[in-house]
Amino acid sequence: MHDPIASSGVLANESVVNPLKDEKSGFKDITLRDLFEQDRNRFNQFSTHVGDILFDYSKNHLKASTLERLCELAEAANLTQAIEALFNGEPVNFTEGRAAHHTALRTPHTAIDETKGKLINDCHQQMKQFVSAIESGEWTGYSGEAIKTVINIGIGGSDLGPAMAVNALRHTRPTSPLSFHFVSNIDPSQLLDALEQSDPATTLFIVASKTFTTMETLQNAMQAKQWLLRAAGEPAVIQQHFVAVTANIAKAEDFGINNANVFPMWDWVGGRYSIWSSIGLPLMLAIGEEGFEEFLHGGHLIDNHFRSAPLEKNVPVLMGLISIWYSHFFGTASHAVIPYEHYLQLFPNYLQQLDMESNGKSCARNGIKTPWNTGVPIWGGAGSNTQHSFHQLFHQGTTTVPLDFIVGTKSPNPLGNQHDYLYANCLAQSRALMQGKNYNECMEELLKSGMSESEAVALAPHKVIEGNKPSNTLVYPLLTPSVLGQLIALYEHKVFVQSIIWNINAFDQWGVELGKRISQDIFNVIKGSKSNLDSSTEGLIKLKKG
Amino acid sequence: MHDPIASSGVLANESVVNPLKDEKSGFKDITLRDLFEQDRNRFNQFSTHVGDILFDYSKNHLKASTLERLCELAEAANLTQAIEALFNGEPVNFTEGRAAHHTALRTPHTAIDETKGKLINDCHQQMKQFVSAIESGEWTGYSGEAIKTVINIGIGGSDLGPAMAVNALRHTRPTSPLSFHFVSNIDPSQLLDALEQSDPATTLFIVASKTFTTMETLQNAMQAKQWLLRAAGEPAVIQQHFVAVTANIAKAEDFGINNANVFPMWDWVGGRYSIWSSIGLPLMLAIGEEGFEEFLHGGHLIDNHFRSAPLEKNVPVLMGLISIWYSHFFGTASHAVIPYEHYLQLFPNYLQQLDMESNGKSCARNGIKTPWNTGVPIWGGAGSNTQHSFHQLFHQGTTTVPLDFIVGTKSPNPLGNQHDYLYANCLAQSRALMQGKNYNECMEELLKSGMSESEAVALAPHKVIEGNKPSNTLVYPLLTPSVLGQLIALYEHKVFVQSIIWNINAFDQWGVELGKRISQDIFNVIKGSKSNLDSSTEGLIKLKKG
Repeated sequence: MHDPIASSGVLANESVVNPLKDEKSGFKDITLRDLFEQDRNRFNQFSTHVGDILFDYSKNHLKASTLERLCELAEAANLTQAIEALFNGEPVNFTEGRAAHHTALRTPHTAIDETKGKLINDCHQQMKQFVSAIESGEWTGYSGEAIKTVINIGIGGSDLGPAMAVNALRHTRPTSPLSFHFVSNIDPSQLLDALEQSDPATTLFIVASKTFTTMETLQNAMQAKQWLLRAAGEPAVIQQHFVAVTANIAKAEDFGINNANVFPMWDWVGGRYSIWSSIGLPLMLAIGEEGFEEFLHGGHLIDNHFRSAPLEKNVPVLMGLISIWYSHFFGTASHAVIPYEHYLQLFPNYLQQLDMESNGKSCARNGIKTPWNTGVPIWGGAGSNTQHSFHQLFHQGTTTVPLDFIVGTKSPNPLGNQHDYLYANCLAQSRALMQGKNYNECMEELLKSGMSESEAVALAPHKVIEGNKPSNTLVYPLLTPSVLGQLIALYEHKVFVQSIIWNINAFDQWGVELGKRISQDIFNVIKGSKSNLDSSTEGLIKLKKG
Repeated sequence: MHDPIASSGVLANESVVNPLKDEKSGFKDITLRDLFEQDRNRFNQFSTHVGDILFDYSKNHLKASTLERLCELAEAANLTQAIEALFNGEPVNFTEGRAAHHTALRTPHTAIDETKGKLINDCHQQMKQFVSAIESGEWTGYSGEAIKTVINIGIGGSDLGPAMAVNALRHTRPTSPLSFHFVSNIDPSQLLDALEQSDPATTLFIVASKTFTTMETLQNAMQAKQWLLRAAGEPAVIQQHFVAVTANIAKAEDFGINNANVFPMWDWVGGRYSIWSSIGLPLMLAIGEEGFEEFLHGGHLIDNHFRSAPLEKNVPVLMGLISIWYSHFFGTASHAVIPYEHYLQLFPNYLQQLDMESNGKSCARNGIKTPWNTGVPIWGGAGSNTQHSFHQLFHQGTTTVPLDFIVGTKSPNPLGNQHDYLYANCLAQSRALMQGKNYNECMEELLKSGMSESEAVALAPHKVIEGNKPSNTLVYPLLTPSVLGQLIALYEHKVFVQSIIWNINAFDQWGVELGKRISQDIFNVIKGSKSNLDSSTEGLIKLKKG
């Protein structure tokens, strides 16, 4: 088990941590409102462009000196070397002896080593040919009709990426006749709802599972096959209606899938980083091969930036360091992401896997339990909806939740003033969180409204908004495939930066294995095996057996 | 400003808080695994039925004495009196001088005061007649055809309740010819997607806004009206295609809606508690009036229990106290809810508003800043999907997230073994979280797999799962309207219990006003007004103006 970026953990290094603690103390008596009032140039100083995206981090508890100290922390953690190891395909996922080389998938094939370049290029060509056959109608279902419906069957990384990205970008190709469903849950209701809306003669299933043994995926795929066969009769038609994305060709063939229709996966691409691979097949079907190329290009553009920009101007580095700043030094315990673009409504769900499965760890790279806290819960939703749901807690709750707002300056669907209102809503949230509304302002407002002094005194404390709550804003011009690629890559690298500071492996996920094993035991007990479980589990099983 | 349940806050009362601190210390050296090993009767002792639901709280850091101390805390907070004030329609929402009398909506009309009973009954009859006219085809669109599509336009409480409930229960009435869309976001993409799938001649819009001035809702409604008129011509047809749920009849009439088609709202029902009112109209359309009655009955059943069961057997009280136990005494900073029923996938989103808008407060009822933390972020998603996304953090992260698992013993869509696997998955998560997997167990497993001693020693720490993570499990037989009503009411009352212990008003939401006002200012600047804003907001506005 060789770790190419072994370290004992920079957060144990007092000479870089203590200066940050001092920085933190410096913010005790100065609010974000003060910082903006003192310096009209604050936005220019604390915002930067990368690709199509403006990253505004001015509404944070940061001074120039804070950023210097944070960058020193990153340097002391050998972040630059870790980034090189990541891009060079070294086995940074050392507990599994694997690279995490998703960046190779979006690098021009000529710029990577020949063997890997050929693998990627061949896969890419296979995807293009397939998409072109579907689009031209050359590929048909059993009745000779073209495909109209695509049902992706996969879970976790084989679901969240394509579902999010298709939902985000489908609008860029309004002429596509394809409709899409994503089936992940073992709960049969999800599959049945998709089947109900589909015609077996014109439906294509993509079965996506690296091992082709994922229980949820295989169960759903088998039921889908039976549904097809009930309509079509002949098992030979499976080849026209099922393709696979997997590393296990033999198992896909056993299922009835032609090996020409098996798209490869490799162990150097983790599930939560796989949207750039053949797992992205539904996305290529939705937005076409040119759109998919643009998407890859967007990711690559961020890679170049991440690899070459100086730390203090490096957006994923800044994003990661700012998160560490709050969680480690201010003790914040969750992070929210609010995209103000309805088509990005699944982006927070996507980030939940990316971030929490990567950084929800407590064993450091050197095998000891991390003495510090690591990843925090990530949550969010589509603004403006969330304003009418949980923003109350941001504004008046006792907990500080650092936020990322994400918004486009243009709408893919301009309609009246609606996009101007949307944009105004987004900016108003970050400003309200920063400014707040103090007791005197509340009193003034209440008295002006005609309320008596005594009533105003009683009500005003309930209207106080503390303010001084930090947020980032990421602004893009229009939601294109390239912009989505840029956004995803920014967050991928942010998560990596955090993992290096925390000194954990962002690329394994040993924690999910135990539940899978116990689930099989419980299933066997439900089916009649003898049980040797705790009284709660046994009691709940009994309830099911009735 | 009269507060019928004024208090100085029980958490300041050391005589009830200190014994709980002592209880907490008692759990330092005893794990959940130990508790189950020591007592085979633990499940029976720490689980209870209410209505159709079994509440299993055995996998928590609780002993009988802990529960006694928690109930003493509730008693010292005068919880029983507060519950009575809630049910009696007293102005418990004292900062707005209002009752929070959503329970009246699900109480048999004869059991509440005559005036309110008549209001509720009349509204209920109006809803029934309307639903019956839609169902019979007596109500038609401008072309004389029956309604096929219902588009609900509302946001926050006027959206999350009906969207979640229709999604959860639509399957109970598979013969309904109606399809449903929920449009909330000011982002025009959401409205346009719904319109694209709809035929103006057979589409009914429900415009839901208490004030009929909610910016997002009115903007969408105006665009929807133009879409209708482009197809139908005559403004008179608005009456056939638009109904309103609002307290502002005049504004709805101005919009073109016939006042016979305005369904009332009242100030004693808060938005996030309004699914039981005429805001539930889409739900009644989806599941029929009998289904809606059952839904109300489910809520009422929990009300009776909440009002009459002794604290130590009172499920919403236990749910609330257990949450307080973790957040106040263990310092947990978020709470996750994972329903293992795909049709309940929006339930966590619904609970986000219910919980965070209610308890995201920092001003105590007596006007002082709460010296303790209050509401925490609520998040979650549909299991088993979430197992393949963020459960890694539950199992191996450094943060403890108390969990509620929710699962049915039967599937509305039985298919092969899938529901048995689903149920097994759910139980396996709570058991894995409780048990964990220690270093010796990991070593044993690795050596058994043929790994060398030195390799096993290096890898084992990365596979350790700490365990000792608490969760509740709520089990119902089959997802019916009554069961959904029960689940919602349980959480409503849980949130109320927490608010009483924290000594905050769960029914106002002053924190969201500032953002609305600033949004209008920023909109005006986008449209050309002079700006007097911070440099970040101005910089971002400039970016939009290009």
